[in-house]
Amino acid sequence: MDMNSLRINGKRLQSTLEEMAKIGGTPNGGVTRLALSDEDKKARDLFVSWLEELDMEITIDEMGNIFGKMPGKNNDLDPVMSGSHIDSQPKGGRFDGILGVMGALEVARTLKENNIQLERPYIVVDWTNEEGSRFSPAMVSSGVWAGELSLDWAYNRTDINGKKQGEELERIGYKGSVPAKKHPVHAYYEYHIEQGPILEREDKTIGAPKGIVCLHWYDIYLEGEANQVGPTPMVGRHDALVAASEMITAVNKMPAKMGIDNLVATVGEIQNQPNSRNIIPNGVHFTVDIRSWDDDLAIRGWESLKKDFNEIAERHGTPLRMEETWRVEHAPFDDRLVKRVLETAEEIGYSSHYMVSGAGHDASYMNHFCPTAMIFVPSINGRSHVEVENTSWEDCAAGANVLLHSVIKSASETE
Amino acid sequence: MDMNSLRINGKRLQSTLEEMAKIGGTPNGGVTRLALSDEDKKARDLFVSWLEELDMEITIDEMGNIFGKMPGKNNDLDPVMSGSHIDSQPKGGRFDGILGVMGALEVARTLKENNIQLERPYIVVDWTNEEGSRFSPAMVSSGVWAGELSLDWAYNRTDINGKKQGEELERIGYKGSVPAKKHPVHAYYEYHIEQGPILEREDKTIGAPKGIVCLHWYDIYLEGEANQVGPTPMVGRHDALVAASEMITAVNKMPAKMGIDNLVATVGEIQNQPNSRNIIPNGVHFTVDIRSWDDDLAIRGWESLKKDFNEIAERHGTPLRMEETWRVEHAPFDDRLVKRVLETAEEIGYSSHYMVSGAGHDASYMNHFCPTAMIFVPSINGRSHVEVENTSWEDCAAGANVLLHSVIKSASETE
Repeated sequence: MDMNSLRINGKRLQSTLEEMAKIGGTPNGGVTRLALSDEDKKARDLFVSWLEELDMEITIDEMGNIFGKMPGKNNDLDPVMSGSHIDSQPKGGRFDGILGVMGALEVARTLKENNIQLERPYIVVDWTNEEGSRFSPAMVSSGVWAGELSLDWAYNRTDINGKKQGEELERIGYKGSVPAKKHPVHAYYEYHIEQGPILEREDKTIGAPKGIVCLHWYDIYLEGEANQVGPTPMVGRHDALVAASEMITAVNKMPAKMGIDNLVATVGEIQNQPNSRNIIPNGVHFTVDIRSWDDDLAIRGWESLKKDFNEIAERHGTPLRMEETWRVEHAPFDDRLVKRVLETAEEIGYSSHYMVSGAGHDASYMNHFCPTAMIFVPSINGRSHVEVENTSWEDCAAGANVLLHSVIKSASETE
Repeated sequence: MDMNSLRINGKRLQSTLEEMAKIGGTPNGGVTRLALSDEDKKARDLFVSWLEELDMEITIDEMGNIFGKMPGKNNDLDPVMSGSHIDSQPKGGRFDGILGVMGALEVARTLKENNIQLERPYIVVDWTNEEGSRFSPAMVSSGVWAGELSLDWAYNRTDINGKKQGEELERIGYKGSVPAKKHPVHAYYEYHIEQGPILEREDKTIGAPKGIVCLHWYDIYLEGEANQVGPTPMVGRHDALVAASEMITAVNKMPAKMGIDNLVATVGEIQNQPNSRNIIPNGVHFTVDIRSWDDDLAIRGWESLKKDFNEIAERHGTPLRMEETWRVEHAPFDDRLVKRVLETAEEIGYSSHYMVSGAGHDASYMNHFCPTAMIFVPSINGRSHVEVENTSWEDCAAGANVLLHSVIKSASETE
């Protein structure tokens, strides 16, 4: 057969994604498939059954990461790997993560039905809990696998109901016995929706990010003094929510203050105590998320915020605690693989765009020890992490075709 | 016996309050006894058993209000009534509300053991859901009883889990069949902790408020656009939490802007959606509470905030909905009864103070149709609606003694 004319089956990819979208599907067309929930388990079971249909060698490691391996002609050579994650945000979309796992599976299906055996083994992977929305932080299991986070620490992360990640892995039957420990990988491709407005704005089908911006997460805790609101004069109050509100405003203004390009800062989460309309709030927790291609700029932004926060807390008499929860440096991908994605797109007839990724991905950790690249397809209206998240089926197929030929090229390399 | 030397039993009042404090007691010495919860039911059952011990005639009406009646010599005369509420705030204190019910019960016990039959009947009352922290609004059942709120509307108020007040009344077995409908009352006294810092600051034991400030409650709903935070530039975001934060700051600054005296404004409650650290918030609900002795000033404060809110919402592109949930006008109490409380305090040897009440009470609705007054005792450090809420046992007894003699005076009046 003419390898160059090989294409994945777009209809099959579509129906595969549609079947997955039913698991945790929401009335408004999104999905809620939180890490290690019953829905996550159901989707994993289905994914595993599909790997079995292809006679792939299945491994489940201690973090619940699922690997499906298709042997190569020479299994002494390091494998090519591709995948993403099955878990979603609460009321998230039908493409985020799952497209990358099902896309990589579709590549395996296409190879199998065309009786193509590549030189190198090919591994499809589902990384556990990429989102970090149930158990913080995100990307925890690729982090453990890559040797950058400790297994015990990951097991002991708790959700808001006090359930531990390790216990929940066991509960859904995905705490494997194989060590969650990296082995050499020849090339890692992660196929994903863009989750931003750039490709649509530029009218391009395929995006190849040069890397991922840095990601800094902070947790802020404020202590106020609760009192009945009516009899407590304004002067002398210690209102934790008023102090937090000034801080949230400061976070939003910080990027403009530092130079808006190349820096975003967001408060996504807030808890208020006791949260009763006639009691002055005595405790607030909120999060800060800072991202930039320029790590130093992100740090300078945080230093500036810390100064603001301290001044605000002092003024309101609301003691302040700040935790630096998580920091990942900006991650430039492998130049050669990124160029391969761009060239492959053009070769098979898709327009392409060289860009950055504003979102973190499991590719961030993989990128630390093996050649890594990502393949983006457009998000309609730039929307993601919401139920209306959408990508056209043509674009889904386009990205999978670019993945197919990128995998074939990498897996054909004998050294 | 010499009526003037009659005193309530301070030790008995203390042990009664201590027994009640065990129901819903929190590790830090407060109570969580939300309206129509299992704890509320347990406390009601205990209260009813105590009324039974005194052979009082017990009535439970459609709103779950509990009345215990001690007959007078002439039961054709309108009764004297006293009470407050058994429900508490979440992690609230051991005195708010319950002191007024147990204080009124202690008055009945004192009369009974001294074989004193008053001219008029004396009724001890527990009003259902005064706090309004589970089912909004507050003081709902005295409002229904006084004929100012509709029974159906009250039944259909829901808590955050979607449970209806009417169903929960039925569930705990306190949906009585007697209509929740006022009858003439000769005098209503409500005994309560101050919940503010004034009596302590003035070093007085008994406070007699000339009335209750007005109370305006508003609910604000903001709509934003959810997106993954990383790939979404700062410019063009519609972040509902950022808009809400500016509004909360405006609420806090409003009283100073209008002239700080005699006006307080507070945001006690906030809900953020989807409340995930890497998603731009797309929905915020928060509450506004405005109180003043001057109703017009409170309205002008709200008008000023509405202008601010509209400007902020427009600037952020976050559509705004404002609900005027509840308004109670400032309520001057009955001059004669207020003076009686002040005089009675002095007669039996307690210092007294003429003041206003910053908090709403069931007395607000009673005051609309019958002569009403309140008796305040000091809150240590002015703290209330918190677990450290406290009042000395001496002051608890002092207030109950003032209530006893105020009730005796009113119930001795033959016209």
